[in-house]
Amino acid sequence: MEESREEKIEESVASVLEEAKELQDSVSSHISNTLSDEQPLRQRAVILDSKIHSLRSSLDSLLSNKLINPSLADKLDEDLQRARCIIVDGDASSLLPGHAQGRFLRMFLGPINVRASRKDVQLKVKEEYNSYRDRTALLFLLFPAALLILRSWVWDGCLPAFPVQMYQAWLLFLYTGLALRENILRVNGSDIRPWWIYHHYCAMIMALVSLTWEIKGQPDCAKKQRGVQLFLQWAMMQGVAMLLQNRYQRQRLYTRIALGKAKRMDVVWGETAGVDGQLWLLCPILFILQGFEAYVGQSLLRTAFVGVVSEWQVIVCGLLLVVMAIGNFENTVQTLMVKSRFKAKMRKSKSKQRLN
Amino acid sequence: MEESREEKIEESVASVLEEAKELQDSVSSHISNTLSDEQPLRQRAVILDSKIHSLRSSLDSLLSNKLINPSLADKLDEDLQRARCIIVDGDASSLLPGHAQGRFLRMFLGPINVRASRKDVQLKVKEEYNSYRDRTALLFLLFPAALLILRSWVWDGCLPAFPVQMYQAWLLFLYTGLALRENILRVNGSDIRPWWIYHHYCAMIMALVSLTWEIKGQPDCAKKQRGVQLFLQWAMMQGVAMLLQNRYQRQRLYTRIALGKAKRMDVVWGETAGVDGQLWLLCPILFILQGFEAYVGQSLLRTAFVGVVSEWQVIVCGLLLVVMAIGNFENTVQTLMVKSRFKAKMRKSKSKQRLN
Repeated sequence: MEESREEKIEESVASVLEEAKELQDSVSSHISNTLSDEQPLRQRAVILDSKIHSLRSSLDSLLSNKLINPSLADKLDEDLQRARCIIVDGDASSLLPGHAQGRFLRMFLGPINVRASRKDVQLKVKEEYNSYRDRTALLFLLFPAALLILRSWVWDGCLPAFPVQMYQAWLLFLYTGLALRENILRVNGSDIRPWWIYHHYCAMIMALVSLTWEIKGQPDCAKKQRGVQLFLQWAMMQGVAMLLQNRYQRQRLYTRIALGKAKRMDVVWGETAGVDGQLWLLCPILFILQGFEAYVGQSLLRTAFVGVVSEWQVIVCGLLLVVMAIGNFENTVQTLMVKSRFKAKMRKSKSKQRLN
Repeated sequence: MEESREEKIEESVASVLEEAKELQDSVSSHISNTLSDEQPLRQRAVILDSKIHSLRSSLDSLLSNKLINPSLADKLDEDLQRARCIIVDGDASSLLPGHAQGRFLRMFLGPINVRASRKDVQLKVKEEYNSYRDRTALLFLLFPAALLILRSWVWDGCLPAFPVQMYQAWLLFLYTGLALRENILRVNGSDIRPWWIYHHYCAMIMALVSLTWEIKGQPDCAKKQRGVQLFLQWAMMQGVAMLLQNRYQRQRLYTRIALGKAKRMDVVWGETAGVDGQLWLLCPILFILQGFEAYVGQSLLRTAFVGVVSEWQVIVCGLLLVVMAIGNFENTVQTLMVKSRFKAKMRKSKSKQRLN
């Protein structure tokens, strides 16, 4: 009896070992087959992408030399956009080389690949990023507002250190998360401008520096805490701007997702037409915010040099705010210019042809 | 001439658009083919894994009821280990369900999948994690050592705030990186104990709290900075322990990688035999370190309650150090027990049979 049990288990173990070896062989051949099937598709995607690029530039040169009918150029440009959307928003996008993973991601995550292999996952990542921004924008509005209200109603004009430090720690966590997520989006083919990521690096440094900044209490609270107070006001405005920005970007994304679900994305172009009006509402608010950011930065620098508060933290935070304000302004203007350039070119070329 | 150019570009654009649609179709059918090929392999891997588990438990019960020859049990156990290694270290491992991605990763990274689909990438991630630990261990040794040396030779027994805060910010960055990487390793099938990850969460909180902790200067520096000084001494010892731990773990990993490169991993088991001696050298050092950690924690708590420094930061840091010391001790002991349990069982069962 004992003998047979021994034999039975010996047999089972041997067969399991054999099965494991077979499984390893089939999986490794499956992996190499998949890779070799992918290779020609990858080549086709890369070649097609470069064809679209070269057709676009020859279309541009024909248009500026008035060698093509503007309305035909308009139509061809739309077709090229559509072709590019099919590649970039479709399943083929996982085969195109994305942005390389930068130092920031490698520093925090190591060499793990964060590129999603399927487009629906990529879109899910982007949507989750937007809803994360929504949630944080709300907190961005409420957290500093609560601090400022409590300051004047409960704390007698003098912010206690602990809640402010909690807020600063939250900012540090928030900006680190945003910077990581934006880097991941970039790897997944998002066309986010590098500046917005640098901007979050600056904000991370500022949050870290402000944590080491002693929040001084009585006497003379109002004077010593002027910087913190300005900063909280700016943060509240930032919350409003973020909520508006999110609404604008979310509308664009939803259009793309809806189209991505349709088998062939035939009507992607023209998606921004409906939200152009909102962009011109958003921009003045962004510019006001950037102005206020620069103002807070330079008031911090002034308090540091006049000598009311002469810690190094004040100078660093002031400089960072000024740098961020300038960079934000520059990049908002550039975005607007890119959006309107092609339209202007079209219009110009059309009116010229009418004159001729 | 103009006409023909227009026609030519119109044709090219139309063909590019058609190619894009075709590419999208072939890529999406390639993806669905790959997924359907993978499905049966995935099932086989899961079934095989559960078979190995059930065989191991029946082997254990046979052994404890003395229904099997211990040397045969030994051999069968090795075979099961080998089968498990083939699945877990081989290409099939990407098909087995890993640990789910925890809240921590989702908080920082969003819903992106950090599971590597190929085993060689997983091993690369683990190796890079180890070399990251090596680099940080060295800094862990040198950074606090430099601070302590400068303190007594240059700074006259009084640490200035800025370099200490730099060190604390570095610690925060380091522990965040380690916690992220360990979570990623866990998703990729590493059997890292959850405690070591919680331990890094505690260390992150401690670094964050210590950043808000004002470093007080003269007069009475030695007394006020006693906590910081103890902490730096503990950090130096930590560096030594990390270097030793890394050497031990690296040796184990190299064996696995070398065997993973061989097509069939036939001789994986027995890998720890050569490094057992080192483990018994490592443990006393770890225990001494944990004792010192608890000592630093309770001295911080004492200074807080005696009233030399009564900030909340001191109490939180003290408590965290004590919690970490207890958790580390408990988990080191458990690891040792798991490692020696099966051997002890074998030995006992062998000697019993000899008595019979």
